[in-house]
Amino acid sequence: MKEIKLFITDIDGVWTDGGMYYDQTGNEWKKFNTADSAGVLFLRLLKIPTAIITGEDTLIVQRRADKLQIEYLFMGVDNKLSVAKALCNKLDITLQEVAYIGDDINDLNLLEAVGLSACPGLSPKYIQDKVDWIINVKGGDGVFRAFVEKYLEETNMLEDALKSLQKERDYYH
Amino acid sequence: MKEIKLFITDIDGVWTDGGMYYDQTGNEWKKFNTADSAGVLFLRLLKIPTAIITGEDTLIVQRRADKLQIEYLFMGVDNKLSVAKALCNKLDITLQEVAYIGDDINDLNLLEAVGLSACPGLSPKYIQDKVDWIINVKGGDGVFRAFVEKYLEETNMLEDALKSLQKERDYYH
Amino acid sequence: MKEIKLFITDIDGVWTDGGMYYDQTGNEWKKFNTADSAGVLFLRLLKIPTAIITGEDTLIVQRRADKLQIEYLFMGVDNKLSVAKALCNKLDITLQEVAYIGDDINDLNLLEAVGLSACPGLSPKYIQDKVDWIINVKGGDGVFRAFVEKYLEETNMLEDALKSLQKERDYYH
Amino acid sequence: MKEIKLFITDIDGVWTDGGMYYDQTGNEWKKFNTADSAGVLFLRLLKIPTAIITGEDTLIVQRRADKLQIEYLFMGVDNKLSVAKALCNKLDITLQEVAYIGDDINDLNLLEAVGLSACPGLSPKYIQDKVDWIINVKGGDGVFRAFVEKYLEETNMLEDALKSLQKERDYYH
Repeated sequence: MKEIKLFITDIDGVWTDGGMYYDQTGNEWKKFNTADSAGVLFLRLLKIPTAIITGEDTLIVQRRADKLQIEYLFMGVDNKLSVAKALCNKLDITLQEVAYIGDDINDLNLLEAVGLSACPGLSPKYIQDKVDWIINVKGGDGVFRAFVEKYLEETNMLEDALKSLQKERDYYH
Repeated sequence: MKEIKLFITDIDGVWTDGGMYYDQTGNEWKKFNTADSAGVLFLRLLKIPTAIITGEDTLIVQRRADKLQIEYLFMGVDNKLSVAKALCNKLDITLQEVAYIGDDINDLNLLEAVGLSACPGLSPKYIQDKVDWIINVKGGDGVFRAFVEKYLEETNMLEDALKSLQKERDYYH
Repeated sequence: MKEIKLFITDIDGVWTDGGMYYDQTGNEWKKFNTADSAGVLFLRLLKIPTAIITGEDTLIVQRRADKLQIEYLFMGVDNKLSVAKALCNKLDITLQEVAYIGDDINDLNLLEAVGLSACPGLSPKYIQDKVDWIINVKGGDGVFRAFVEKYLEETNMLEDALKSLQKERDYYH
Repeated sequence: MKEIKLFITDIDGVWTDGGMYYDQTGNEWKKFNTADSAGVLFLRLLKIPTAIITGEDTLIVQRRADKLQIEYLFMGVDNKLSVAKALCNKLDITLQEVAYIGDDINDLNLLEAVGLSACPGLSPKYIQDKVDWIINVKGGDGVFRAFVEKYLEETNMLEDALKSLQKERDYYH
């Protein structure tokens, strides 16, 4: 199992079920899932930063990233691979040390370049064919967290991470 | 079957499917289910108070608690166990007389301390392993009500509670 | 098969999946399904009026009833049976000539009194035990329309109703 | 396999699950799925225009059509067939060169007239009986994209379209 030093994630179709709620006034909604927040917390415990790279450019995602204190956020991105390369350069790591989860055509170039790639179970077949792990959770149902937990399991870190996360919370009041 | 004198419930992932709807303006939504309101009504008939303990701090939950006249509401809580202990002291009951339903890591310390613990069927395996009852209903689909009804069934009180609830409504007009 | 002269319907859990969306500002949402509108149109073709009787009292339901030109709307109702009786008196029909679909405890007194009663497939067992027809469609997925269509099928009127509805639309432009 | 020169699509029940979200203030919501946007992009690569014909008349659909740069948008339509005929005349094509996907009674006259018709898998049986293809994806889960992809597969164009779409994105930065 490769050592991963950065987790990158897509948003629409991964942190959501792909749903885009439109109203009559120009406002827009996305439905996130609190389950994914534990994925970010697990990685923070392990000192692994999280990056969001998304093709959309909305205050919705900005707000979610702020709430969870996501380390890196890139929005309105057309070429995800080139953005990821620039971030790797900045962090002095290689793409082989990056994990990425995405679900659609504009994720393919990055999925094919990273050391550990994943997609949700219901992604198109031509995406599933290109990734290391197909995570059997739907977008919007916590598939990012499931991806992180599977990595922790494969590297025998899940049990310790669970204890640490629980202990940290016990300190709060 | 232990006698329960207080029901405590988590919100996100229990009264909802974990969904957090964000828009472009700073507003936020949760989707509750009217089915859970009957759970609160059943307990009120039995003079058992309901408490909400949640890590989030939003007007959304405040509004839902007001609508259903929930007896105790604690929001923005990091250590759920310590809040529950303080409430037990105030009510002069023990944690063994408390029922609690939660679905995630920050629920574990309270789930392990109460007399009757439960989680929705799709909770992570490391949560399911720690509870007395796995309720086979998804968060947001009425799992709190199902938990209350299962307790009423186990204590042979469901049929009477149903009749009382129906009769009470017949008095209205 | 009895002749039905009035269809009455519950809203939450029938026209919706029971979901109540709350935000931070005091506003509230329900999710209806366009599929149910055909149920109302079928009945209108047959000169059978539709009535909504619901325990909630919101502008949401008022707006939906206005959009579909529902004939009778009663909101904030505690005792559904007494409201239905009053409507029957006004229309000079009996409860035996009424069809009703509801899904929960406050629907029981009316479900047990009408000539044709139904509930969605996922209603509590103690509701299912009391109705004539369990309609195998979830609330919010068009169960009202399915109820109407089943009635049309049982009375051999569905095919004609379909043709009429399609023809009426062809007249529009 | 016929050559298709125009794709027409219904909205409610196809681009959505039929859900209509109402609030207390007169506003309304629909939930689209980002998956369908790839369907529009595929067709644009092939120089096949997309048209929306819908019975509803809302800014919601206008906004979605603008976002995806849909070529033709007709709202508030009662007779879909007559609108489609007029568009065919304008484009100098026949209805046999049109593909259409719809899910309900007001789609029937157009579904029966076009060269290639489809509906989502959960449409009423009397709709399924009239179409060429039943697409096994639910409305709101990307059934329009699935319809386009099936057409591309049947005409052996999917692989090339995928490569072109990916390549086009690689040019961006």
